[in-house]
Amino acid sequence: MKLVSFAVVSEGAPRVGLRLDDSILDLTPLGVTDAVTAVAAGAEVLQQAIEMPATSLIFAAGVRLLAPIPRPPRIFCVGLNYRDHAVESKMEIPKVPTIFLKLGSAVIGPEEAVRIPAMTKQPDYEVEFAIVIGKAGRNIAKEDWREHVFGYTILNDVSARDVQLATSQWVMGKSFDTFCPIGPAVVTADEIGDPHNLAIRLSIGGEVLQQSNTRELIFKAPELISYISSITALEPGDILSTGTPAGVGLGRNPQRWLQPGETMVAEVEGLGQLVNPVVAG
Amino acid sequence: MKLVSFAVVSEGAPRVGLRLDDSILDLTPLGVTDAVTAVAAGAEVLQQAIEMPATSLIFAAGVRLLAPIPRPPRIFCVGLNYRDHAVESKMEIPKVPTIFLKLGSAVIGPEEAVRIPAMTKQPDYEVEFAIVIGKAGRNIAKEDWREHVFGYTILNDVSARDVQLATSQWVMGKSFDTFCPIGPAVVTADEIGDPHNLAIRLSIGGEVLQQSNTRELIFKAPELISYISSITALEPGDILSTGTPAGVGLGRNPQRWLQPGETMVAEVEGLGQLVNPVVAG
Repeated sequence: MKLVSFAVVSEGAPRVGLRLDDSILDLTPLGVTDAVTAVAAGAEVLQQAIEMPATSLIFAAGVRLLAPIPRPPRIFCVGLNYRDHAVESKMEIPKVPTIFLKLGSAVIGPEEAVRIPAMTKQPDYEVEFAIVIGKAGRNIAKEDWREHVFGYTILNDVSARDVQLATSQWVMGKSFDTFCPIGPAVVTADEIGDPHNLAIRLSIGGEVLQQSNTRELIFKAPELISYISSITALEPGDILSTGTPAGVGLGRNPQRWLQPGETMVAEVEGLGQLVNPVVAG
Repeated sequence: MKLVSFAVVSEGAPRVGLRLDDSILDLTPLGVTDAVTAVAAGAEVLQQAIEMPATSLIFAAGVRLLAPIPRPPRIFCVGLNYRDHAVESKMEIPKVPTIFLKLGSAVIGPEEAVRIPAMTKQPDYEVEFAIVIGKAGRNIAKEDWREHVFGYTILNDVSARDVQLATSQWVMGKSFDTFCPIGPAVVTADEIGDPHNLAIRLSIGGEVLQQSNTRELIFKAPELISYISSITALEPGDILSTGTPAGVGLGRNPQRWLQPGETMVAEVEGLGQLVNPVVAG
């Protein structure tokens, strides 16, 4: 199943649903009115929605997709988690996961524009494979990680490098409004056989800039879920974005920065494409 | 006025009120049922509560104080913002504020115990002067900072130094459950003449370990509010904790770490005392 949030164009209020081929199964009649409630309910409960009468089907052309989790409780990001990206950033391969946060206020959905503020001259992209937590838990054992995962999505960790690296702490340079595209859907875990063997790629104007595979992750889902939950209880809707592979603008020679008019296409095998144009201001 | 959150011992559900001498004026009859609503309403609206009938007065001995903002939308912290603490941490005096986050799940109130998890051998204290945002805003001009401030409180930025410094990013080592005592009240801005001339101190067992004055802040309220709001819109209930002065356990010779059985007393002139015992686990 593919969980989406959407707005019916003529109304505007966000709803949550399941993406079918050319329609969306609205979960509102089930009493599921927001994405966090949906992931907390779990895939088995949502599966029942498939058997509902067709009156809750909405033609996909009449809706605007939003970020599947429009306001995640927390967005935990992992720095330097692909061996090649750690090398290009001239940083040591870490012994424990480097966790930082992105503010939830930065989240946007598919096709929404990333707005580059005048404050940065070095806007950059980072395609990431992201885990969406379904079941709350603390001190989760590595071997139990799967029961806490609702599904997976794509996250583009847009970063203003000059702001990010002006101090030692990264959160502000990565948290401008619109700097956190997520989507297009949360694909439930049952549809992804091995989350640690997925092609991951980001391209702009047909040029492939990042290309790797989640098997290259230094810290994988079991370690990340265990580590973070040893410090704070994970909550339904929390997002764990697992880090970005080599090829970001910061690490290229010459460096390249996002330009208004460009369109980023972030892809992870089995999760679709997350497409976001770049605009000024 | 002193805004507090509290629980009537026989009930348990959190309420918000105004602290008087030996009683608390319950704001529930005014329709103000949580702290974020109260700070968004503003001091002028709350002032009207003072004229309400005495039936809403609750004897303070019958309540348990909670953190005045039990779950702030965001907790922005400033690193290295006292000249002396930047020096003791062997870090350069920064040119822009070093902003990091603490998770809201770590917040506790006055008299609540800070629990030291087995995962750290280096738990440490940090008394801080904290600003509580009342009025939302983005791109706030430095000269307009006062209209966005509801009041001030004390925050103890408890930190597991070994976890904090295991990677470059500080958030996780500062976000264990109970690692963010706040309180005892939010004192409204009108009661604090000059927030940049307040004595600040932390002591344990009568020994003064930190002692400074907010006039030593490198980045003061106007710069912090302007900088953060240039990246993300500030919201009512957001907390800006302005950093800690010299004297933390990490910077002492020999270093000293919090021990179960100790009690931290954090004080800021005009804001009272924030007292928290330390326990294992």
